[in-house]
Amino acid sequence: MKLQKGDKLVMTGDSITDAHRIPDGEGPGDARGRGYVNMVNALLTSVYPQLDIHVINMGTSGNTVRELKGRWTRDVLDRKPDWVSICIGINDVWRHFDHRKQPSLHVSLEEYRSTLEELVASTLPSVKGMVLMTPYFIEPNRQEPMRAKMDMYAQAVKDVAAKSGVLVVDLQEKFDRMAQHVYNCEIAADRVHPNPCGHMLIAKAFLDAVGFQW
Amino acid sequence: MKLQKGDKLVMTGDSITDAHRIPDGEGPGDARGRGYVNMVNALLTSVYPQLDIHVINMGTSGNTVRELKGRWTRDVLDRKPDWVSICIGINDVWRHFDHRKQPSLHVSLEEYRSTLEELVASTLPSVKGMVLMTPYFIEPNRQEPMRAKMDMYAQAVKDVAAKSGVLVVDLQEKFDRMAQHVYNCEIAADRVHPNPCGHMLIAKAFLDAVGFQW
Amino acid sequence: MKLQKGDKLVMTGDSITDAHRIPDGEGPGDARGRGYVNMVNALLTSVYPQLDIHVINMGTSGNTVRELKGRWTRDVLDRKPDWVSICIGINDVWRHFDHRKQPSLHVSLEEYRSTLEELVASTLPSVKGMVLMTPYFIEPNRQEPMRAKMDMYAQAVKDVAAKSGVLVVDLQEKFDRMAQHVYNCEIAADRVHPNPCGHMLIAKAFLDAVGFQW
Amino acid sequence: MKLQKGDKLVMTGDSITDAHRIPDGEGPGDARGRGYVNMVNALLTSVYPQLDIHVINMGTSGNTVRELKGRWTRDVLDRKPDWVSICIGINDVWRHFDHRKQPSLHVSLEEYRSTLEELVASTLPSVKGMVLMTPYFIEPNRQEPMRAKMDMYAQAVKDVAAKSGVLVVDLQEKFDRMAQHVYNCEIAADRVHPNPCGHMLIAKAFLDAVGFQW
Amino acid sequence: MKLQKGDKLVMTGDSITDAHRIPDGEGPGDARGRGYVNMVNALLTSVYPQLDIHVINMGTSGNTVRELKGRWTRDVLDRKPDWVSICIGINDVWRHFDHRKQPSLHVSLEEYRSTLEELVASTLPSVKGMVLMTPYFIEPNRQEPMRAKMDMYAQAVKDVAAKSGVLVVDLQEKFDRMAQHVYNCEIAADRVHPNPCGHMLIAKAFLDAVGFQW
Amino acid sequence: MKLQKGDKLVMTGDSITDAHRIPDGEGPGDARGRGYVNMVNALLTSVYPQLDIHVINMGTSGNTVRELKGRWTRDVLDRKPDWVSICIGINDVWRHFDHRKQPSLHVSLEEYRSTLEELVASTLPSVKGMVLMTPYFIEPNRQEPMRAKMDMYAQAVKDVAAKSGVLVVDLQEKFDRMAQHVYNCEIAADRVHPNPCGHMLIAKAFLDAVGFQW
Amino acid sequence: MKLQKGDKLVMTGDSITDAHRIPDGEGPGDARGRGYVNMVNALLTSVYPQLDIHVINMGTSGNTVRELKGRWTRDVLDRKPDWVSICIGINDVWRHFDHRKQPSLHVSLEEYRSTLEELVASTLPSVKGMVLMTPYFIEPNRQEPMRAKMDMYAQAVKDVAAKSGVLVVDLQEKFDRMAQHVYNCEIAADRVHPNPCGHMLIAKAFLDAVGFQW
Amino acid sequence: MKLQKGDKLVMTGDSITDAHRIPDGEGPGDARGRGYVNMVNALLTSVYPQLDIHVINMGTSGNTVRELKGRWTRDVLDRKPDWVSICIGINDVWRHFDHRKQPSLHVSLEEYRSTLEELVASTLPSVKGMVLMTPYFIEPNRQEPMRAKMDMYAQAVKDVAAKSGVLVVDLQEKFDRMAQHVYNCEIAADRVHPNPCGHMLIAKAFLDAVGFQW
Repeated sequence: MKLQKGDKLVMTGDSITDAHRIPDGEGPGDARGRGYVNMVNALLTSVYPQLDIHVINMGTSGNTVRELKGRWTRDVLDRKPDWVSICIGINDVWRHFDHRKQPSLHVSLEEYRSTLEELVASTLPSVKGMVLMTPYFIEPNRQEPMRAKMDMYAQAVKDVAAKSGVLVVDLQEKFDRMAQHVYNCEIAADRVHPNPCGHMLIAKAFLDAVGFQW
Repeated sequence: MKLQKGDKLVMTGDSITDAHRIPDGEGPGDARGRGYVNMVNALLTSVYPQLDIHVINMGTSGNTVRELKGRWTRDVLDRKPDWVSICIGINDVWRHFDHRKQPSLHVSLEEYRSTLEELVASTLPSVKGMVLMTPYFIEPNRQEPMRAKMDMYAQAVKDVAAKSGVLVVDLQEKFDRMAQHVYNCEIAADRVHPNPCGHMLIAKAFLDAVGFQW
Repeated sequence: MKLQKGDKLVMTGDSITDAHRIPDGEGPGDARGRGYVNMVNALLTSVYPQLDIHVINMGTSGNTVRELKGRWTRDVLDRKPDWVSICIGINDVWRHFDHRKQPSLHVSLEEYRSTLEELVASTLPSVKGMVLMTPYFIEPNRQEPMRAKMDMYAQAVKDVAAKSGVLVVDLQEKFDRMAQHVYNCEIAADRVHPNPCGHMLIAKAFLDAVGFQW
Repeated sequence: MKLQKGDKLVMTGDSITDAHRIPDGEGPGDARGRGYVNMVNALLTSVYPQLDIHVINMGTSGNTVRELKGRWTRDVLDRKPDWVSICIGINDVWRHFDHRKQPSLHVSLEEYRSTLEELVASTLPSVKGMVLMTPYFIEPNRQEPMRAKMDMYAQAVKDVAAKSGVLVVDLQEKFDRMAQHVYNCEIAADRVHPNPCGHMLIAKAFLDAVGFQW
Repeated sequence: MKLQKGDKLVMTGDSITDAHRIPDGEGPGDARGRGYVNMVNALLTSVYPQLDIHVINMGTSGNTVRELKGRWTRDVLDRKPDWVSICIGINDVWRHFDHRKQPSLHVSLEEYRSTLEELVASTLPSVKGMVLMTPYFIEPNRQEPMRAKMDMYAQAVKDVAAKSGVLVVDLQEKFDRMAQHVYNCEIAADRVHPNPCGHMLIAKAFLDAVGFQW
Repeated sequence: MKLQKGDKLVMTGDSITDAHRIPDGEGPGDARGRGYVNMVNALLTSVYPQLDIHVINMGTSGNTVRELKGRWTRDVLDRKPDWVSICIGINDVWRHFDHRKQPSLHVSLEEYRSTLEELVASTLPSVKGMVLMTPYFIEPNRQEPMRAKMDMYAQAVKDVAAKSGVLVVDLQEKFDRMAQHVYNCEIAADRVHPNPCGHMLIAKAFLDAVGFQW
Repeated sequence: MKLQKGDKLVMTGDSITDAHRIPDGEGPGDARGRGYVNMVNALLTSVYPQLDIHVINMGTSGNTVRELKGRWTRDVLDRKPDWVSICIGINDVWRHFDHRKQPSLHVSLEEYRSTLEELVASTLPSVKGMVLMTPYFIEPNRQEPMRAKMDMYAQAVKDVAAKSGVLVVDLQEKFDRMAQHVYNCEIAADRVHPNPCGHMLIAKAFLDAVGFQW
Repeated sequence: MKLQKGDKLVMTGDSITDAHRIPDGEGPGDARGRGYVNMVNALLTSVYPQLDIHVINMGTSGNTVRELKGRWTRDVLDRKPDWVSICIGINDVWRHFDHRKQPSLHVSLEEYRSTLEELVASTLPSVKGMVLMTPYFIEPNRQEPMRAKMDMYAQAVKDVAAKSGVLVVDLQEKFDRMAQHVYNCEIAADRVHPNPCGHMLIAKAFLDAVGFQW
C-alpha cells in the first residue's frame, strides 16, 4: 500500500470527480460528493481505518484542463497534499462536439498535453506521488468521432505520466472491459457521467493503482 | 463466490438498508438509495460484470421486525429471490429508549426472535441462501444501556442463523473494530445511521460473507 | 395537400410526441407541448390558416405500444379524428436495454408488430388517413446493439404500413441524413429525445408525407 | 439562399425575440428561447444541415430602440455577425398607451427612426446583410389608436430599410393576412405576444426574405 | 337605499366576480376576493355601517350560465339571500372565439337567454330583489366580432330583466363611457379582466342601481 | 373638486399607505398596493376619467416620521407632485409599546411635530396643496394607553395643519364613528392595519377633503 | 405534588393549547408544540425527572367546546389519562365578534356551560383529577365587549369546576395581574395568542394548581 | 434576586444559546430563539413582571471561544449590559472529534482558558455581574473520550470563575443528575443539543444562580 498513515490525498478533476461535493471538499456526510472520491474515501476508511488517510475532493463540474490550471495553486498546492490525483480531459474533448460553433471553448490536444505536463511538473517536487487518470467515453466503437478524439487525449495522459514517472490509470480500458458485459448506456445514459457502478469502477481502478488490498 | 450468474438478491431491513431508495428498489441512478445496498450492487457490477447479479433494495425506514413481517410476502417472497438478506432490529431496541412511554411500540426480545425465525423458516425452502446481519449500536461501552440491549438482540440473530443454518454477519463486531481507530460519533452522529464509510463497512461485511473477491 | 378544411388530426405516441403537452392536448399556449406536434400545428396554422386543421396531441411519455393500446379507445377513437398519426416503439426497444433485468417490461418484436397492426385495423375504417412514423435511434453505427434492434422494429412499422396501405414516415432515415452533418449527440444527448432541430425534422417529415407545401 | 455556410446570424429585438432565451442566446435545448428565433434555427438546421448556420438570440424583453442602442456594441457588434436581424418598436409605441402618464418612457417616432437608422448605419459596413422586421399590433382595425400609431412606426422601418438598402419584412401585413382566417385574440391574447402559430409566421416571413427553400 | 338593515346579498358570476375569493365567499381579509364584490362590501360597510349588510361572493372563474345553473341551488338558494346579483355571459361568448374548434364548450344565445330566465324565475319568489349586470367587452369598435356578439348577449340580459321586472346594470355602456377617456387596454389588458379602476366602475354601477348615496 | 386635470398626487406614509405597493408606486395592476391609495386611484379614475389624475403611492411599511424625512427628497420632492398627502405617526407611537425596551426606536411627540412641520414647510412652496391625515388606533376607549398617546400625536397633526393652512383629515374620528356599528377588531385584528372596509373609510375621508363628488 | 409517578396527563383545548403540536401530541422535539404544554412538560421533566410524567397535547386550533366534544372519546378518553386539563372557550366567544354575521358558528353561554359540564361528568369517574382553565381576553378594560362576554364564559368554567369539585385555574386573573406591568399588546398582539411569556404564565398557573414546587 | 429593575442581561454562547434567534436577539415572538434564553426571558417576565428585565440573546451557532472573542465588543460590550452570561466550549472540544483531520479548527484547552479569562476580565469592570456556564456532554460515562475532554474544559470554566469571582453554573452536573432518570439520548439525540426539557434544565440552573424564586 503506497499511501501512508496520515497522508493527505487531493483528488481533482471535472464533474466526474466533483459529483456534488461541498465547497470544502471534505467533512461529514456527502461532503465529498456521491461519486468515486466518496467511494475511495469510504473504502480507505473502512478497510484501513488505522491509516487515517485524509481525502479531499477538489473536482469542479465543467472544468477543462484550462480552468483546472487557473485554480491549481488555491485548490491543490495550498492544501499541501501528500498525494494528488487528476482526472481531466472529457470536457476538453466534448466542447468540440456540443459547442461546435464556439471555438473559444475548445481545448486543443496540444494545449491539453502541455498544460497537464505543467501541472504535474509544478506539483511533483512537493508531493509523495501523483496519479493521472485518463479521460474516457463509454462507447465501444473506437471509430465513433468523440471516442476517437478521446483516445488521443487519453494517450496524451499516458505520455505525460510516462515522461514524468507518475502513476497512470487507464479508465477507458476499464470501461471498455465492463461494457463487454453491461450495455454502455446503462453505465452512463450520456456515456460520460457514470452510475454508481461506473463510479465504483473508477474508485477500484484508482485504489488498485496505489496498492490497496480489500 | 456463492452468488451465481443471474441470481436475484433482495436486501431488506430498516432505514440503514432503505437509505432513500425509490419504491421499486431497483433501476437507474439512485434507485437503490445511497447506502450499503447501492455499494453492494456497485461492487458486484463493477467487479463481477459477467455475473449479472440482480440486486433489489426492499429496506423501509422505521421498520421493526413486526412491520417487516407484515410486508414480507409482497416485498420479498413475491419477487422470487435467489438470495435474501435481512438487517433488522435496531428500531426494535431503540423504541424502548426514544419512545419510552409508548410500550405498544416496543418489540420484545421474544417477539423479535420468534418473528425472525418465522421469516427465515418461511423463506428458506424457496431460496438458494439467506444472510442475517445483526443490529448494532456504534458505542464501544458495552454497559451503555442501549448497547447492552442491542447485544441481546444481536445474539438472537446469531442464534436464529445457527439454528437454521443460514449465513450471519456480525455488524456489531465490525463497527467495534472500526471504532478502535475512528471516533464513533464520526461514523454516525446518532451512533446508528452511518456515514458512507460505515455503509461501506456493511457492504464489505456482507460481500465477504458471500465469498466476494476484490 | 391531403388534409382538408376542418379535419381533426390526432397525433399519438410516447415522450417524443408528448413533449409536456397538457392533458387536453389542445388549447392555447403550450397545450400541445414543445415538440413536433406543436410545430406541425404552428406550420399548418400559419401556412394554411384557411384550412382550420384541428390538431390534438395524445402522446404519453414512457408509452410502449402496449400502453398505447390500453388507451386507444379513450384517447383516439372517442375523439373521432379524421387523421391519426402514430410514433411508437422507442420504449418497446429501450426497455430491453435500460431495464435489462425486468423482462416483464420488454415488448417483443412480435407483440409490437401485431399490436400495431391491430390498432391500425381497428381505426382505418373510421378515418380519412393514417400516418405511421418509425421509431429511431440517432446513432449512425447500425451494428450498435440498440440501433440494430431499433431497425427491426422500424422495419415492422414499414411492413404494417405497406400491408394496410397507410402512409409511412421513415424517421430513422431522416435522422441518419441529418447526422451526416450534425454530430448525433448534439441532436439528442441521449440519442432519443431530440432538440428543437430534431423535432422540426420530424414535423417536416410528417408534413411532407401529407403533401404540405411551404 | 442568401445565408452561406458557417454564417453567424444575430437576431435582436424585444420580448417577441427574447422568448425566454438564456443569457448566452445560443447552446443546447431552449437556449434560443421558445419563439421565432428557436424556430428559425430549427428550420435552418433541419433543412440545411450542411450550411451550419450559427444563430444567436440577442432579444431582450421590454426593450425599445433606446435600450437596444445602449447594448448594441456588446450584444451585436462584438459578436462579429455575418447577418443581423432587428425586430423592435412595439414597446416604443406601447409605452404611450400603457404608461400614458410617464412620458419619460415614451420613444417618439423621430427618436425611433433616427436611432434605427444609426444602428443600421453603424452595422452595415461589417456584415453581409441585415433584415429589419416591422413592429405590429394584431388588430385588423386600422383606426384603433395603438394600431394607427404602430403603422407609423412600421412605415419608419420600411423607410429606413429602403434608404439603406437592407431587407425588410412586413410582419404587420403577415399578421393582417393570418387574421382574416384566425381570430386575432387567438393568435395573441394581448394582440402582441403571439402563440406558437404566430411565432412560426414570423419565422417563415424572415426565412422567405433570405431565400430559404423548404 | 333599497338594501335594508341586515340584508344578505349574494353576488354571483364568473372570474370578474370571483376575483380570487375564498371558498366561503365571506369572512375577514380578502375573503371576497379583490374585485368589485370586495369594493361593494367595503363601500357598504364604510358608508352605511349601521345597515350591517351581509355580502357573500359566489362568483366562480370560468363559469358560463350553464355552470352557474348547475350550482345555483347550493351556492345561491341554500344561502337564503335577500338580494342576488348576477354578472354572467362573458365566457358564454368568449368560448366561441378562444375555443373555436370545441363547439361543445359554446353556449348559444338561446341557451344563455333561457337559462338566465330560468334562474331569475326560480329565485324571484324568495328574495327582495335581483340585479342583472350585462356582460361586456371593453372594445369601443362595435363591429369587432367579439364585441358584436357580446352586444347580443347583453341585449338578452336587458330583455330578461325587463320581462321579469328586476334591476339591470348596463356595464357595457359604463365601460364605453370610461373608454372615451382611458385607453381600453389600460383598463383591461385582455379587454375583459379589469384593473382596480374598472372593478370600481362595476361596484359603483351596482351601488347606484340599488340607491347607494356616497 | 380641488384636483385638476393632469394633477400628480403623491401619497406617503407607513404600512397603511404602502399596502404592498411595487417600488415604482404606480403602473398597471396592484402597483399601488391593495389599500386606500389603490382605492383613491380607482375612484378618481372611474368617477372622473376625464381628469386624468396621476396617483403615486410612496408609503413605506414600518416608517416613522424620522424615516419619512430621510427619503422625502427622493420619494416626494423629486417627483414634482401637485398634491401631497401624508399619513404618518402610528409607528412613532407604537414603538413606545411594542419595543418598550429599545428607546432609540421611539419618536417623541416633539420630534414628531417638528419633523412634520419641517416636511410641510419644505414642500408647500412647490405644490398646489397638501393633505395631512391623523394617525389613529381603532380602540374606542380613550383611556387605553396607546389610544391616549395616539390622540396626542393626532392633535399635533391638526396643529401643524392649522398653522400651515393645509387640509387635514381626522382619521381617528372616522374610525371612532365606524366602530359604533362595527366591532373594532373586525375592522383591524391588531386595531391598526384595517380590512378593506377600513381602507375604504380612509379613501373616502381623503376624497371628501378634496371635494370629490360620487 | 398531586401528579404521581408515571401519571398520564392529557391537556386539551384550542389553538392556545395546540401551538403547532404534531398529530400524536407527544414524542421528541417540538411534538407538544411551542406553547404552554411544551413548557409544562419541560418543567415537569427537568424538575421532577424521577416522576416520569407522561404529557400529551390534544389541543386543536379553532376549536370551540362543540368541536371538543365531538373528538372527546377519540382524543381524550381512549388515551386512558390519569389527569385531564381543559382550556376552552375563547373561540366560543370570539366567533360572536369576528364572524358576527354567521350565527351558526356562535356557541351560546348555555351550550358552552352544559357541554363543558357533560365532558367533565363523563370523564371524572375514570381519572385521578381534572383541571379546568378559564378562557381569557388580555384586555384590562372589563367593559370592552369581548372582555365582558369572556368574563361570563370564564365564570361558567368556575361554576362547573365548583359544582364537580375539580381544580380550576383563573387564567384571566393571571393575565390581568401581568398586564399591570406589561402592556397587553406586548403579551399578545391580538390579545389572545400569547408570546412565550404569556405561555409561561399559563404553564406556571397550571403547575401551581397541581402542587408543583420549583 | 440578584437582577434588579430594568437590568439588561446579554446571554452569549454557541448553538445551544442561539437556538434560532433573530439577528437582533430581542423583540416579539421567537426573537430570542426557542432555547433556554427564551425560557429565561419567559420565566423572568411572567414571574417578575414588575422587574422589567431586558434579555438579549447573543448566541451564535458553531462558535468556539475564538469566534466569541472576535465579536465580543460588537455583540456584548457595545450593548452596555448589566449582566452577561457565557455558555461556550462545546464546539472547542467537539472540533477535535468531528473535524479530527483539520487541526486549524481545534481550540486547545490553553487557548480556551486564557480567552475566557480575557473576556471576563475585559467585561467585569463595566457590569453588575457575570455568569459562566460550563460546557457539557450528556454522556454519563466519564471515560468516554469526548466526555473526558469536556470535563477538562468545564473545569477550566470553574477555575476562571473562581479566580475572577463571578457566578458559575455547572451544567454538566445538572445533566448528569437528570440522566439518572431520563435516557441521555432522549434529552439530546446527539448528546449536545437538548430537547425542551434539557433547555428548561439550563434555564432553571441559570435562574437559580441569580436568586430567582418561582
